[in-house]
Amino acid sequence: MSDDRNLLPHIPVGPNSLLSRRRLLQAGGAVAGGLALSRITRAGAQQPPPAPNELVPPPDPPWSAQGQPFTTQGIRSPYVEIQRAYSGGDSPNVTRQTAGSNFAPLQDLDGIITPSDLHFQRNHSGTTIIDPAEHQVLVHGMVDRPKVYSMDDIKRFPRRTEIHFLECSGNSGAGYSGPSPDTTAQLMHGLTSTSEWGGVPMTTIMQDVGVQEGAEWALFEGADASRMDRSVPRSKLEDDAMLVYIQNGEPIRPEQGFPLRLLLPGWEGNTQIKWLRRIEFGSGPFYTKEETRHYTDALPDGQSRQFTYEMEVKSLITWPSAGHQVPAPGFWEINGIAWSGFGTITGVEVSVDGGNSWGPAELMQPVLPKAHVRFRFPWVWDGTPRVIMSRATDDTGYTQPARQRLLDIRGTQYIYHFDAIQPWLVDADGAVTNAMGQSASDLPSDTQISEEYL
Amino acid sequence: MSDDRNLLPHIPVGPNSLLSRRRLLQAGGAVAGGLALSRITRAGAQQPPPAPNELVPPPDPPWSAQGQPFTTQGIRSPYVEIQRAYSGGDSPNVTRQTAGSNFAPLQDLDGIITPSDLHFQRNHSGTTIIDPAEHQVLVHGMVDRPKVYSMDDIKRFPRRTEIHFLECSGNSGAGYSGPSPDTTAQLMHGLTSTSEWGGVPMTTIMQDVGVQEGAEWALFEGADASRMDRSVPRSKLEDDAMLVYIQNGEPIRPEQGFPLRLLLPGWEGNTQIKWLRRIEFGSGPFYTKEETRHYTDALPDGQSRQFTYEMEVKSLITWPSAGHQVPAPGFWEINGIAWSGFGTITGVEVSVDGGNSWGPAELMQPVLPKAHVRFRFPWVWDGTPRVIMSRATDDTGYTQPARQRLLDIRGTQYIYHFDAIQPWLVDADGAVTNAMGQSASDLPSDTQISEEYL
Repeated sequence: MSDDRNLLPHIPVGPNSLLSRRRLLQAGGAVAGGLALSRITRAGAQQPPPAPNELVPPPDPPWSAQGQPFTTQGIRSPYVEIQRAYSGGDSPNVTRQTAGSNFAPLQDLDGIITPSDLHFQRNHSGTTIIDPAEHQVLVHGMVDRPKVYSMDDIKRFPRRTEIHFLECSGNSGAGYSGPSPDTTAQLMHGLTSTSEWGGVPMTTIMQDVGVQEGAEWALFEGADASRMDRSVPRSKLEDDAMLVYIQNGEPIRPEQGFPLRLLLPGWEGNTQIKWLRRIEFGSGPFYTKEETRHYTDALPDGQSRQFTYEMEVKSLITWPSAGHQVPAPGFWEINGIAWSGFGTITGVEVSVDGGNSWGPAELMQPVLPKAHVRFRFPWVWDGTPRVIMSRATDDTGYTQPARQRLLDIRGTQYIYHFDAIQPWLVDADGAVTNAMGQSASDLPSDTQISEEYL
Repeated sequence: MSDDRNLLPHIPVGPNSLLSRRRLLQAGGAVAGGLALSRITRAGAQQPPPAPNELVPPPDPPWSAQGQPFTTQGIRSPYVEIQRAYSGGDSPNVTRQTAGSNFAPLQDLDGIITPSDLHFQRNHSGTTIIDPAEHQVLVHGMVDRPKVYSMDDIKRFPRRTEIHFLECSGNSGAGYSGPSPDTTAQLMHGLTSTSEWGGVPMTTIMQDVGVQEGAEWALFEGADASRMDRSVPRSKLEDDAMLVYIQNGEPIRPEQGFPLRLLLPGWEGNTQIKWLRRIEFGSGPFYTKEETRHYTDALPDGQSRQFTYEMEVKSLITWPSAGHQVPAPGFWEINGIAWSGFGTITGVEVSVDGGNSWGPAELMQPVLPKAHVRFRFPWVWDGTPRVIMSRATDDTGYTQPARQRLLDIRGTQYIYHFDAIQPWLVDADGAVTNAMGQSASDLPSDTQISEEYL
């Protein structure tokens, strides 16, 4: 408490300024008035004559009128248009159905935080509206003290907040069959978002109910009409699972499972049950429909993989990406996002010559485990057709594969966990399209891209 | 690329599970069907009989009906009520005027990110609505190449994203005169928020226009009707100043200066000009009305301080805080936020006995410079009246002062930069009120608080 700044605010002044801390403290308020006369340069009477190199300020803009009054909640600018894609599910004749996906408009976003109202959504039977005062969560099965929790009970436990991505296992799935050239970043990869989540660690709940020895799995069940349910191994619950009720500072949104959802950082989204109503501990997986018929991965040899929980390493360039127009040759900054369900992104490389050479991108802070990371890469475009792409690596050594390497193993019956490198074609006119799945012979001859990326 | 995980997703299973990676890979899809018969425990035909300690699951909730259809933008739950305070300025008879403040509802928020539509606002003449296609920014004065930038020009420069708090210099100002007992966290301290901001570093603009030797200050001017303008020393512009157009992933909101505002991490909010239209470089401060009549600090001896830019170290407990009700004695987790305009928070201490003893709080990740940090502290309330408070320290060694120490130096003519420790009284009935400014004799006798905190 001996630090002067505790009581006397620091006065930062430039080294060549007429002000100094000592002078200010000595002379007090009088200094300001004295200097002001000679220095006021606001538009008006005392402005000094413009220097020869000085532009005339633009005229007063028409918006220099009294602005809009306060509103209880802030609004987006009327000049900002949200380009949001929707993909219907079971009822293709009904617009805005209840089974389908809302995509995050990645091509228009920046940074890592996704605004909560633009977070991607994957609903199996619509957005369920729940009164938190009535909501209950049953925890039972192989536990010593089965319990029914109210939301007040849940919120009484110590809470944590952590920034993590969520991603649908089907995100980027068009990569298996091959997207059309106009498939945008949003439509291709928009089923991922990053939020600051807050809630109670599963280990706290597990202590409270006394999970028994041998209870190596738990079933999580939602209160939506489709009763989404998935089995989760105890190891994950003890590692970093949380029951979350906070998203980006406020209660989680109904589309994200208000009042309570499971969060399994880095794992496929469908496992992170929304509108959570029941947790049952058992000795093995529960083999629900969602993990036998759905969310399994068919291999070329007829076998299927099951419980493929972790979302692999992925990255994509969000600007420029399909649908964008690079206005002219010259300097432009490429930027995009990278993430890993295994851990922390350690590097992103960018190629602007179809994969013939790669250079390191800069990662913006914060670089957090199992969260989107924003990267950027300087680019001087020479005006010729170019295929640009990014390739991320994480702290477990995983690097995104080229698409043909992935397809060689997985075939095209696979639906989920597509994480290959995303190539975008910038044509000579600056128009950007999706190069994935195109044949090299259909691309401009001077792109020189290796087939393995297509 | 030799890592198997590049192509074969990892299959995480619990150590005691019947599944193993090898077995799955050997047996393929057939495994799932075989085990499923004996393990399906979804509500329905094949559920095993309940164990003796097993509760009956709650009946199907009434909301297990088809949910709501998708909407282009997500919505808050109808059960979430935003308790938002507003403080009018020049026109007290007009509700929701254009001069005043909208507070961030700190008592209801968690984590560090403030939802953009709940970010605090301080407007001098309303929220200015600007067409970004028409907007221009003039940079002139002591520069070699004065320029007028369009928003497209600005966005072409390399961008950065960083998480920082913004705080009005008048935040917590009621602390000088003494708040009433019902003054909430929002009303007392709600003129601060944290966002992920994105834009172009000022150094890039300065290189582009060629700032001349001796141009040690710059004037920043807004396009709002009040033409807000402030002088900023070159040292800050070269340190970490940015022109930002991104907030929490999307274009900044009109209330925050869309399409462009100045960001000066850690400095008082009024310097961070919104709706930025003009930057003029000069040899000294410009002594605008905003830094001569306004935003100066009157000391007891009649002198005033000027250019007190940095927001000091501050913290407060947001739960429980005034207006909350602690439901019953027993375990509760105290949590709150801390931040420093000087640098990074290194520790927060909490007292639950009126400052007689202090214990370290846990800081949630991420802990970033010049950003809010969320802290938490376990508390077993014994049901007696208690004064609880927090005290933050940053990496420059600054620790929040007790209120009486601050008043001894600054007096009560001071308006800005109040950063003293915030005491909350939890009364025997659990009701929480603001203890600041109360006399110790008015508080319950067993709170034992030292007068210096009141």
